Amino acid sequence: MKIAVCQINTVIGDLEGNKNKILDYYKKAINANADIAVFPELSVCGYPPLDLVEKNEFREAVTKINEELASESGDVGLLFGTITEDYEDNIGTGVYNSAMLCYNGKIQFVQPKTLIPNYDVFDEVRYFESAKEVHTHKFKNEMLGISVCEDIWNDADYWKDRLYEVDPIEILIKKEASLLINISASPYSYGRRTTRYNMLSVLTKNEKLPLAYVSCVGAQTDLIFDGGSMCFNEKGELVMLGKTYKEDFFIFDTGKSLSPLNKYEKRFEEEVLSALILGLKDYANKTKFTKAIVGLSGGIDSALVTYIAVQAFGKENVHVLLMPSEYSSKGSIEHSKKLINNLGISWHNVTIQPVFEKILEQLNPLFENLPPDVTEENIQARIRGIYLMSMSNKFNYLLCATGNKSEMAVGYATLYGDMCGALAVIGDVYKTQVYKLANYINRNNEIIPEEIIKKPPSAELRPGQTDQDSLPPYELLDKILWMYLEDSKEFNEITEEIGKPEVVLKVLKMVDRNEFKRKQAAPVLRVTNKAFGYGRRFPIVQGWRK
Amino acid sequence: MKIAVCQINTVIGDLEGNKNKILDYYKKAINANADIAVFPELSVCGYPPLDLVEKNEFREAVTKINEELASESGDVGLLFGTITEDYEDNIGTGVYNSAMLCYNGKIQFVQPKTLIPNYDVFDEVRYFESAKEVHTHKFKNEMLGISVCEDIWNDADYWKDRLYEVDPIEILIKKEASLLINISASPYSYGRRTTRYNMLSVLTKNEKLPLAYVSCVGAQTDLIFDGGSMCFNEKGELVMLGKTYKEDFFIFDTGKSLSPLNKYEKRFEEEVLSALILGLKDYANKTKFTKAIVGLSGGIDSALVTYIAVQAFGKENVHVLLMPSEYSSKGSIEHSKKLINNLGISWHNVTIQPVFEKILEQLNPLFENLPPDVTEENIQARIRGIYLMSMSNKFNYLLCATGNKSEMAVGYATLYGDMCGALAVIGDVYKTQVYKLANYINRNNEIIPEEIIKKPPSAELRPGQTDQDSLPPYELLDKILWMYLEDSKEFNEITEEIGKPEVVLKVLKMVDRNEFKRKQAAPVLRVTNKAFGYGRRFPIVQGWRK
Repeated sequence: MKIAVCQINTVIGDLEGNKNKILDYYKKAINANADIAVFPELSVCGYPPLDLVEKNEFREAVTKINEELASESGDVGLLFGTITEDYEDNIGTGVYNSAMLCYNGKIQFVQPKTLIPNYDVFDEVRYFESAKEVHTHKFKNEMLGISVCEDIWNDADYWKDRLYEVDPIEILIKKEASLLINISASPYSYGRRTTRYNMLSVLTKNEKLPLAYVSCVGAQTDLIFDGGSMCFNEKGELVMLGKTYKEDFFIFDTGKSLSPLNKYEKRFEEEVLSALILGLKDYANKTKFTKAIVGLSGGIDSALVTYIAVQAFGKENVHVLLMPSEYSSKGSIEHSKKLINNLGISWHNVTIQPVFEKILEQLNPLFENLPPDVTEENIQARIRGIYLMSMSNKFNYLLCATGNKSEMAVGYATLYGDMCGALAVIGDVYKTQVYKLANYINRNNEIIPEEIIKKPPSAELRPGQTDQDSLPPYELLDKILWMYLEDSKEFNEITEEIGKPEVVLKVLKMVDRNEFKRKQAAPVLRVTNKAFGYGRRFPIVQGWRK
Repeated sequence: MKIAVCQINTVIGDLEGNKNKILDYYKKAINANADIAVFPELSVCGYPPLDLVEKNEFREAVTKINEELASESGDVGLLFGTITEDYEDNIGTGVYNSAMLCYNGKIQFVQPKTLIPNYDVFDEVRYFESAKEVHTHKFKNEMLGISVCEDIWNDADYWKDRLYEVDPIEILIKKEASLLINISASPYSYGRRTTRYNMLSVLTKNEKLPLAYVSCVGAQTDLIFDGGSMCFNEKGELVMLGKTYKEDFFIFDTGKSLSPLNKYEKRFEEEVLSALILGLKDYANKTKFTKAIVGLSGGIDSALVTYIAVQAFGKENVHVLLMPSEYSSKGSIEHSKKLINNLGISWHNVTIQPVFEKILEQLNPLFENLPPDVTEENIQARIRGIYLMSMSNKFNYLLCATGNKSEMAVGYATLYGDMCGALAVIGDVYKTQVYKLANYINRNNEIIPEEIIKKPPSAELRPGQTDQDSLPPYELLDKILWMYLEDSKEFNEITEEIGKPEVVLKVLKMVDRNEFKRKQAAPVLRVTNKAFGYGRRFPIVQGWRK
């Protein structure tokens, strides 16, 4: 069977736009003599549609699009993900996340998703009921075994611990599927594509069935979908791989003998940079921003974010502000200018000093002669926030927040100051990883000035300040954070491995105590399995660790 | 049977503190000759514990507390909500939200929750599996039918549409329960207590069984638990009602004939004010803030929030800032001073004008002679944000954000400006309801100056500005917003009822478009069925309405 893999980028809720894109690709499939064109999970409405699903009018509009798509179908199969409804009883939502197969002008077959994920960034139980039955469908001499995303993630041979009792793929095989198709929307994190490969390879090898695993691509606010659709033959060999971080269209001919591929995930730096660039670009595209602004401090975080912005927007559309104060080192300005030069972007230098002094003058009578403390540091960061937001407001720049994951974790950032922005571009990248990315960017020639990479990190909010005055060395900090956040380890488990109970306790307390800041942070582009934001739900007010 | 209803206020994660409180109340129950002491859902860890549940060490610590509590139990039953684990298979989380009954030094009976809510603010499917079985338990001549919260919310006689297939209460009755006990953590919204009453009254009347419905009380960040535990006799009559918005302890003697109560929910203004005061107070208590600061604009929102802060902190612990600009009306200052006087609080007057001018001076070269627009308005709001946050940083004041729900809905607020704060105290109160609350506060004598209530609402960010320049009249706006947000109605349904398609479309677009602001808003104290924040998950980047 010739399967047209249609790896598309949809806009959540833009039903008309998504429909037109599906029809465009369907025509490509017809022209390529495909037997069936396959689109990702929830292609009609985009993934994840969240509370839009709860609106009657939204679901009615989706139903109308489903019918319009069906009416456009000919003898080439048109298989896409969409919302369906079925109110046979008065129990549950009656709403399903379904695969819908159309041909000859009609909806011919609907297979709702059986396994409804509800962990990390997935909230599907809120919206969708589980399929009541699982069926195969005969189409052009194949018995199609169609499933939706999570349905294929419960293989007893692969997973030691399973989330669900049922294995819908097992049912499809019992019902004599000759070919598996999974339509998917699986958000990227580093290592994820390797997991997908390993799991799907075991499955197809054991079951001796070919599989087309059709992914979506594109970013939806904080979630980045990497594409990389995977086709396996019945020996468990990966034989076709979709492009990553862009739309793609190709034919998987199950009748052809294809040579196996073994490169399916690139090195960390390449993957993560591509993911972040796509994340920022898609946020802008889908919200109609064409220009970005970054506050350039002279440090490595803002340098990296500026580089990413240039890749996403083009150098002519990125503007930076240098906003020195009396505590800024001379190097900060020089190194920033070197970066600006390397990237070829526009810039302004506007000091915060006179405004800082004016604010202190106004507040002086209120401060009761108390010595300077974090208050004065925050005021500086907040003036910079005002400058950047003013430029964003005046010229419609998208403001990129520059905080990294290590800082967001321990609250080493000023709320309403350097945390300002539409998107926390590197908010899921640890500080030690920021260095890795910078070095990778410089692999052929120096783009991020070495001085920026080499100097000790500092917020430059008081004389001679460095991050290490108040934080453990980043190598150690990131190790603790990784165990705590990524591996869900707790105090005893962490100290058992790395000792240093006082440091570990201090770090965990900082993380917990700063949940209030993260509540008010910009959405964080997700590139790990546990990003701050939607997928991590930690109580703000709590007393677990005293 | 003499049931000691122990309506306690717990701190999420403070296992030791919660255990000690449970033991204190258990002793009260022993002293009052109770047969059993009953505590709310998840009393050991507080509700909702969110991702804390995913930590092994956290669950181990809970298990240890469970055993310590059991070992303290004598012949008086000790029934409380807690987390239990059971890994009999390798499928699912193996973690349960359970009711645990201890006596004679041991855990005697555990009933996990069967119905796991996963809508609005509830996310329990992430953490908890459903009970595999439902049992009754014989204790002191009664057959106890014990259930946890949602378990009692699926009665086929009461609900036309049901969320779940199973009705655990029906099973308990089949298993000859002679007395029903439900341990609960049900967040307040106006009207909720009436719903609880109606539903539980129908149930107990139909089943001819008495019921002790034991609620928790206290606020957990954005969620407010109102207490008001309810005891019904076997005729469906409410015979005992716990205090609202505070802890309570009382004995429900099922052997006694008690006269029915018919007052279970007070008028809107009284309930909502009490809820908000508790919400603010508990946030402060549980995060160790003892003082609050509010920016007083001369408008009704900040006046109301200041009143609430005074109730929550005491007048000696509330400080306000007046922060006039050249656009502030003379009245703003006068009316604010009148309010300050009525409330007896401390204040400072600190103009933003010189700082505003200094910022414009710095940014002037960047603004390319463009005419003033929303940029300059936002700068003013953001300077006020800096002033308030500076006082919060310097003196450890809790900053109360003052935006109401109507404004938050349409984005009529400045991000990093008037949206600054730890908690959006009236962020779930519509503007028209703000007036109701203000008038109610003035019912006996004028506390909020009439001038503040009477004058046309204005942000005072440009000459002669009023809210109605850019928004529909609040009566109309709130009607549209209520249908959209509270009733999940969409464009066609709303215009069908109230006409005005252009206005409706404009409002809905404003709501959708400002999701990015609400992502970065402070937590909103929830007093309706659909508050902004945790329980409403709308995509930030989307194209549903063009």
